[in-house]
Amino acid sequence: MLDPRRQTQLQQLIQDLKLPAMPSVNWRLLDRALVHPTAAADNYERLEFVGDAVVRLAAAEFLYQVEPAAPEGEMAAIRSILVSDRTLAEIADCYELERYLVMSASVAASSVGRETRLAAAFEAMLAALYLSAQDLCLIRPWLDPHWQQYAITIRQDPTLQNYKGALQGLTQGKYQSLPDYRITEVGQTYGDSERFLAEVWVKDRCWGKGKGQSKKAAEQAAAQVAFQALQAEIHGVE
Amino acid sequence: MLDPRRQTQLQQLIQDLKLPAMPSVNWRLLDRALVHPTAAADNYERLEFVGDAVVRLAAAEFLYQVEPAAPEGEMAAIRSILVSDRTLAEIADCYELERYLVMSASVAASSVGRETRLAAAFEAMLAALYLSAQDLCLIRPWLDPHWQQYAITIRQDPTLQNYKGALQGLTQGKYQSLPDYRITEVGQTYGDSERFLAEVWVKDRCWGKGKGQSKKAAEQAAAQVAFQALQAEIHGVE
Repeated sequence: MLDPRRQTQLQQLIQDLKLPAMPSVNWRLLDRALVHPTAAADNYERLEFVGDAVVRLAAAEFLYQVEPAAPEGEMAAIRSILVSDRTLAEIADCYELERYLVMSASVAASSVGRETRLAAAFEAMLAALYLSAQDLCLIRPWLDPHWQQYAITIRQDPTLQNYKGALQGLTQGKYQSLPDYRITEVGQTYGDSERFLAEVWVKDRCWGKGKGQSKKAAEQAAAQVAFQALQAEIHGVE
Repeated sequence: MLDPRRQTQLQQLIQDLKLPAMPSVNWRLLDRALVHPTAAADNYERLEFVGDAVVRLAAAEFLYQVEPAAPEGEMAAIRSILVSDRTLAEIADCYELERYLVMSASVAASSVGRETRLAAAFEAMLAALYLSAQDLCLIRPWLDPHWQQYAITIRQDPTLQNYKGALQGLTQGKYQSLPDYRITEVGQTYGDSERFLAEVWVKDRCWGKGKGQSKKAAEQAAAQVAFQALQAEIHGVE
């Protein structure tokens, strides 16, 4: 049994998530999910390991359903934003998750690493909810609407689609190496959409080129070409 | 409706998995999961994207349950083997999955990339089964016993625990860089358990040292120290 004050606190959190299915929540797991390693040996670390996989699956299934025409590369690019520490910490902040997190005084007083620990606790909380229900029914009803908002923003600004992140995930997984970007300034005019030229090199081969009005935009454009070429290489005639 | 011959074929596969819950299988999805990109535009690629997350979650939950005392670093090290292309292709071979995979004649005739495409189709099949049931009930009953065997083997040979893989995943995720191993031969005797000394450098700092009778064993020992130190850095006082 949890301390009654903690129990009341965690019930408040579940209410804030607007979850009707309160009896099915494993409170002991939810409690542990919100304990930082500096506060106790029995903390969120093992649950975070499971939660990292829960959030990836929730995002994959979400994108599979809401983006029925998107190729997997596009879904991977969007997902890398949806499951990033920054996004997860932002969603955690919507529910003031930090108020529920038990941690040492020195950690609580420090803003360094705040995003990381908030994202970690959030993932651990997702694991606790997943393990409570054995499916995503306690997660997707409140998480999907947040992601829907992010997905709209990402669609409106294609440079946010983060092909660089998706390409990096691919090259690390398949070749244990990072993509190398080489930038040339080909135009001098500020705002010129072809001002910068980026090349992406992976394993001594240029896999894509792209242009943009900023270095970042050119890199993203090149990463998109390279990502698709590498995907084709991996899944194609091989 | 599927072609009756394909339907019969896929029913055989489900029987081979010894799944009792056949009516709940979405046959259309299972069919698509076993179509290589060279055979049709409607192929396994989008399902593989979901399946990659399904297999990570299944492995995370499996390890969380069967290794109740293992810290998350140890679980991550074991999981990197359980979800590797090699392991997934080996399990796929137990069910002769290649027989069900629709692909172009040129791909079918080539052994190059066989492991990759078999693992991809296997992941897509897991996605089809997950999406059919909305949980892991069509997956874990037959997949867990395979992983149990792998976990026993990994436990018997600690160098298989693959701390190098786990460390790489950590440094790529957090620092977008790869660990750098520096090896010194400190002893001359073959079989000497301290013959090689390995250092792991991440971001201009040595995070761990280890010794072993082979370069690989020394690297694994150093990676384990570095992995735990980096974990503490990320989750600790920050």
